[in-house]
Amino acid sequence: MVEHREKDSTKLIIEENPDLENPIFIEGLTGIGHIGRTAVSYLIDHKDAKKFGELISDHFPHWAIVNDNKELDILKNELYYLERDEKRDIVLLVGDAQSLDPQGHYEIAHLIVEYLDELGVKDLITIGGYGTGEPIDGEPKVFGVTTSDREKEQYKDLEIDFDHSVGQIIGATGLLLGIGERFDMEGIALLGETPGFLVSDPKATEAVLEKIDGLLELDIDFENLEEKIDESEEIIKKIKQIHDQVKGQKEKPGEKSKSKDLGYIG
Amino acid sequence: MVEHREKDSTKLIIEENPDLENPIFIEGLTGIGHIGRTAVSYLIDHKDAKKFGELISDHFPHWAIVNDNKELDILKNELYYLERDEKRDIVLLVGDAQSLDPQGHYEIAHLIVEYLDELGVKDLITIGGYGTGEPIDGEPKVFGVTTSDREKEQYKDLEIDFDHSVGQIIGATGLLLGIGERFDMEGIALLGETPGFLVSDPKATEAVLEKIDGLLELDIDFENLEEKIDESEEIIKKIKQIHDQVKGQKEKPGEKSKSKDLGYIG
Amino acid sequence: MVEHREKDSTKLIIEENPDLENPIFIEGLTGIGHIGRTAVSYLIDHKDAKKFGELISDHFPHWAIVNDNKELDILKNELYYLERDEKRDIVLLVGDAQSLDPQGHYEIAHLIVEYLDELGVKDLITIGGYGTGEPIDGEPKVFGVTTSDREKEQYKDLEIDFDHSVGQIIGATGLLLGIGERFDMEGIALLGETPGFLVSDPKATEAVLEKIDGLLELDIDFENLEEKIDESEEIIKKIKQIHDQVKGQKEKPGEKSKSKDLGYIG
Amino acid sequence: MVEHREKDSTKLIIEENPDLENPIFIEGLTGIGHIGRTAVSYLIDHKDAKKFGELISDHFPHWAIVNDNKELDILKNELYYLERDEKRDIVLLVGDAQSLDPQGHYEIAHLIVEYLDELGVKDLITIGGYGTGEPIDGEPKVFGVTTSDREKEQYKDLEIDFDHSVGQIIGATGLLLGIGERFDMEGIALLGETPGFLVSDPKATEAVLEKIDGLLELDIDFENLEEKIDESEEIIKKIKQIHDQVKGQKEKPGEKSKSKDLGYIG
Repeated sequence: MVEHREKDSTKLIIEENPDLENPIFIEGLTGIGHIGRTAVSYLIDHKDAKKFGELISDHFPHWAIVNDNKELDILKNELYYLERDEKRDIVLLVGDAQSLDPQGHYEIAHLIVEYLDELGVKDLITIGGYGTGEPIDGEPKVFGVTTSDREKEQYKDLEIDFDHSVGQIIGATGLLLGIGERFDMEGIALLGETPGFLVSDPKATEAVLEKIDGLLELDIDFENLEEKIDESEEIIKKIKQIHDQVKGQKEKPGEKSKSKDLGYIG
Repeated sequence: MVEHREKDSTKLIIEENPDLENPIFIEGLTGIGHIGRTAVSYLIDHKDAKKFGELISDHFPHWAIVNDNKELDILKNELYYLERDEKRDIVLLVGDAQSLDPQGHYEIAHLIVEYLDELGVKDLITIGGYGTGEPIDGEPKVFGVTTSDREKEQYKDLEIDFDHSVGQIIGATGLLLGIGERFDMEGIALLGETPGFLVSDPKATEAVLEKIDGLLELDIDFENLEEKIDESEEIIKKIKQIHDQVKGQKEKPGEKSKSKDLGYIG
Repeated sequence: MVEHREKDSTKLIIEENPDLENPIFIEGLTGIGHIGRTAVSYLIDHKDAKKFGELISDHFPHWAIVNDNKELDILKNELYYLERDEKRDIVLLVGDAQSLDPQGHYEIAHLIVEYLDELGVKDLITIGGYGTGEPIDGEPKVFGVTTSDREKEQYKDLEIDFDHSVGQIIGATGLLLGIGERFDMEGIALLGETPGFLVSDPKATEAVLEKIDGLLELDIDFENLEEKIDESEEIIKKIKQIHDQVKGQKEKPGEKSKSKDLGYIG
Repeated sequence: MVEHREKDSTKLIIEENPDLENPIFIEGLTGIGHIGRTAVSYLIDHKDAKKFGELISDHFPHWAIVNDNKELDILKNELYYLERDEKRDIVLLVGDAQSLDPQGHYEIAHLIVEYLDELGVKDLITIGGYGTGEPIDGEPKVFGVTTSDREKEQYKDLEIDFDHSVGQIIGATGLLLGIGERFDMEGIALLGETPGFLVSDPKATEAVLEKIDGLLELDIDFENLEEKIDESEEIIKKIKQIHDQVKGQKEKPGEKSKSKDLGYIG
């Protein structure tokens, strides 16, 4: 069974419709310090979550990625689920791409939320980074932003920092929560404190994972996290390299790139 | 009852369809000096208008706003109504966002006008600022631009200034009137004279409100206006800060923002 | 009777469907030297052509224009027709706006050609300017570009210059002909030789009108052309002024314009 | 018979639906060194392939091209087929235009792949260039990127170089393969090693054609390739000239071009 759901120029390809018990959703896409992407990617590998769908979009960058095995694929986001006995099931979204343009950010977030609504998801956790612009002293904090005051209550034992100056959350990490509210979903954005100038941030990633562990009782083993972060850095460096190459092609004769308009935001 | 009306990538979510008597419409969105937004926001609070709908759009900036209580919401415009005995009912549109791109401006204006048409609205007042580029001497003027000569007649006692050099009106303030004409609506744009370099302009806001008071007999008490303007400045500063932050993120490694393409126009 | 035809985000509002005999189409929109716009506008006034429709588009600039009488309207293109005894009827398109983005150019051209096809139009004349970058010596030439070699035959007595180095035709002047070909229409683009740095070019406009006169036997009286050109210059200056104002607003606090992305192309 | 297939703002106009035996697809659009465009164009002429369709898109540059005979046409991609006895039939895509914006790249690639699926195509070859940024010593290599490891097997006798550092493939050359995978198609991108600063690259073009010859047993006669490359350079220079002209028009009074947003990517 393969099912297609489309919204304008974004396609959600569902290979299996999981039957989940009171599921909670966790998002981890590329962004500052790639904290969300790395954290959710680690959860998926570590807990052996099952892939059940993918999302491709005309709003993603218009190129295919070549892996070390010289095989290519277009950019995509992936959906996984984790079934658990006696505990809430989990739906996870992970990926290396976000929309290049504002409209695409909304279109993709609407499509995801509408699908989560069908799956019965009522609670959302989105993960991002908050760049302070300077090195972090000691353990990085995890800043919280919720959809409502009521929501804040359930996180009070987790030492999430609500005393911060975060004024906005760009891309999927913010829009999924805001659009989710219109489908009677509630949730929290967990933002790892990060200098902002690191390609990836292992400490901030671990700090966020600890909060999720505390919340969902995942018994996360952090031993292999460093390895995962190294792997993640490889991919992220490749993506950065591509951006630079596309930028560099601007000077080539007969060619003009759109690189000025390309950007990973999140 | 919640009713959805969509137009491509803009959604109007109506919680209640008010039954209004010969209603007149007033628009107040962000723009130069934020005169429209502040004036209509003051009217809503001061007269206790009732919220009945909201508009969200893929053309708005692609981030969620975090308030002082660390709760987030996506950007939106809101619809209010004010029922009055023996006087004309009023529909009000207020909001902190306008489209980031030209197409969105049209799409949103078309959707609003089509809905106003269903509500039986025949008269439109839009509010904006006209930046002179230098400090204003004495009381700021209120410049008027109408959809037709006939329309101008009814404002003759209000000392609206029709002797100006306004050549164009950007965004909703102009488009709502122009598109409204194609639905047999008439109207006026009231533009407060403002230096243009102020974050908000209390004097120009009050000048415009006085004209609306004169026209609609609202018995506006201007005592709390200053307080409202302070509050408005806070929100506007936050929005400006976000723009600067998004702009600043451009230099971060592995990240490229679209900030060059973002802009509040109005 | 008012009939609406839409194509994505462009609307054609037809007030009257004229019943025309073997009609020929002439386009005159803004562009280099505003030759097309001025020539067709003169024809309409001079020959008292009848307006029967207008075209508005989300791809036009997102502002309303204020005229000297302080009345506003949104930007539009207008359709006129001219019925003639014993001679071919004529459909004319005139306007101050073209699309701001490439996609809009195609969308608008497709909608116009599809409607012309319904009207039975088989022949197209589009008018533009070809900027040489230096002052023109003597009478400006009129360069011709046709959809086919066969088409070129019928213009051989008109001294249209086919010995030129025009490599491309931007916007409606080129796209209407190219898309028209796919509806079995043929046609010619008449491009007045112009320095390119003039706001409007009366001599090039007259040169193009003479060719059209020769082709369609319109008995054009050129006496009032100068007056028309003065009037045209006023409007064009206003449009230029608006572009500059929009550009100037970029530096205003809390505001960022999209002016970099705005452009009249044609 | 003329059949239209549309996808949003792209149109595929099919004049004849060929009945092909196990066809293989070859793409050759504009890009670095114009290797794909030149190679496929040579194949079409040399083997007398039959044109059966064309693709036009609102995402292509918004101008018409004027040829040496002073006739114009809009930009397009063309579909050809080659029927062969005892050997696999071939479908070829050639053209001077790719999308100006990321979304268009996806939209066009989706439409092409969906149509190829109807034709029964299961194997794809896309052709591009890989710019090294420096002069090539000796014979240029042909780099390969495949959709899967299994696919790589069948090219092992052709001396295609899989030991390279290509990290991404921009535009149709990459997207057609990636989207094709979702329709159970497999394929290879053949990228000719090129300095990247040449308008066209005859040596790299010949190197790629040799691989295709080896794979499809086309008995290519390379004698007239040089002539074809000269012809190709003429067209490419014209396209480059147009870009420069559009760019140059920015300084003209009353005009602002969108040239910053225009770019051939591929």
